[in-house]
Amino acid sequence: MTTQTEFQPQATDASTTAFAVLYAEVQQFYARHMHQLDRGEADAWAAGFAEDASFSVPTLPEPVVGRSGLATAVRRSAAALAEAGEQHRHWPGVFDVVPQPDGSVVVHSYTTVFASPLGGDSRVHRVCTCTDVLVRDEGGRLLIQDRKVGRDDLR
Amino acid sequence: MTTQTEFQPQATDASTTAFAVLYAEVQQFYARHMHQLDRGEADAWAAGFAEDASFSVPTLPEPVVGRSGLATAVRRSAAALAEAGEQHRHWPGVFDVVPQPDGSVVVHSYTTVFASPLGGDSRVHRVCTCTDVLVRDEGGRLLIQDRKVGRDDLR
Amino acid sequence: MTTQTEFQPQATDASTTAFAVLYAEVQQFYARHMHQLDRGEADAWAAGFAEDASFSVPTLPEPVVGRSGLATAVRRSAAALAEAGEQHRHWPGVFDVVPQPDGSVVVHSYTTVFASPLGGDSRVHRVCTCTDVLVRDEGGRLLIQDRKVGRDDLR
Repeated sequence: MTTQTEFQPQATDASTTAFAVLYAEVQQFYARHMHQLDRGEADAWAAGFAEDASFSVPTLPEPVVGRSGLATAVRRSAAALAEAGEQHRHWPGVFDVVPQPDGSVVVHSYTTVFASPLGGDSRVHRVCTCTDVLVRDEGGRLLIQDRKVGRDDLR
Repeated sequence: MTTQTEFQPQATDASTTAFAVLYAEVQQFYARHMHQLDRGEADAWAAGFAEDASFSVPTLPEPVVGRSGLATAVRRSAAALAEAGEQHRHWPGVFDVVPQPDGSVVVHSYTTVFASPLGGDSRVHRVCTCTDVLVRDEGGRLLIQDRKVGRDDLR
Repeated sequence: MTTQTEFQPQATDASTTAFAVLYAEVQQFYARHMHQLDRGEADAWAAGFAEDASFSVPTLPEPVVGRSGLATAVRRSAAALAEAGEQHRHWPGVFDVVPQPDGSVVVHSYTTVFASPLGGDSRVHRVCTCTDVLVRDEGGRLLIQDRKVGRDDLR
């Protein structure tokens, strides 16, 4: 018997529950990942990628490949931001999560970067698209195998 | 027996699981929907509405009714943006999801529209509120039956 | 037997389901909470805090303690915004949700505040970090026990 305020489960079978579990896991993964980036935790951030991950952005002629190169790039950015007295926040969202038959997960998302100079006005710095292929390590944790970033101001 | 690092399930009964399943489904629905809008995929986007859906915005004297009129409006916007060399991103979020006794779902959310001119600075274009009534088609997929958009700069 | 389009549940045990349930609950909690704030519903918003909650921000020398003081602060802000003809939207996100062994939940998130003057251009007003300790009331509802807000422009 239902009442006015009782919510009736609908279509909560193994498949919809599995998708919800994955969706939460993906959001948590990106949240931790971006907090690490914005705190300049280069190695922790790079550990979210597969060892041989590929990361491509429109401002580089070739993808960056591997955790070590990724960590180096983040250390360089963090130092430049500290010198400039500016805090960046990478805000991921609008996650279109597409599980693949092989167990990997394709995630289409947007990332907005907000910038705040010390004592100044915060602003939108960049609006980006991000298409990731996520895989799992032996322990079942998500890892980024491939990332392709697009910038809305550079088409 | 629990350890320091083990998370104990709490209140994970049929009702809380059903809400989590719905919450993930709603987020995935809006993500796909807005990606389609920003890519100018007018028909795919309009297919997210019920056939007789009503869409009201403060800048139109009457609601737009039906998928065909909605798709036409998106095609017109996409052409105008392409001509202006500007990319828009509709970013939905802050979802207050309220399941209704009749099986429909009311979703109160915000949508920020970011704009990026080619070669220029990205910016906040609009901040909107969005109240949707979602229903399900025969296959169980979510559809927008009614959408009411508000703009924070036009009260 | 799987098909190309069938998603295989992976790792959907009690613990991952419980995390997904919590993650959805946390997002719903923050969404409702921020909608209440932006509508100036001071008492409803303050009811999301524990009776003896502590709220610290960099612009106050001491934390605000207790629901009554929190509600008063929101009423004052709402009146000032109405007088200025400006609508603020508090947008929480990038939730790093960390369940604690004692049943409380630590949530690290970002909050961007968008501002829209009536008839003017919307903009980013503030970019903040927010670390909350969430607990549960006797009915199992989430409550904020402790909130620490940081502002990216004030370090």
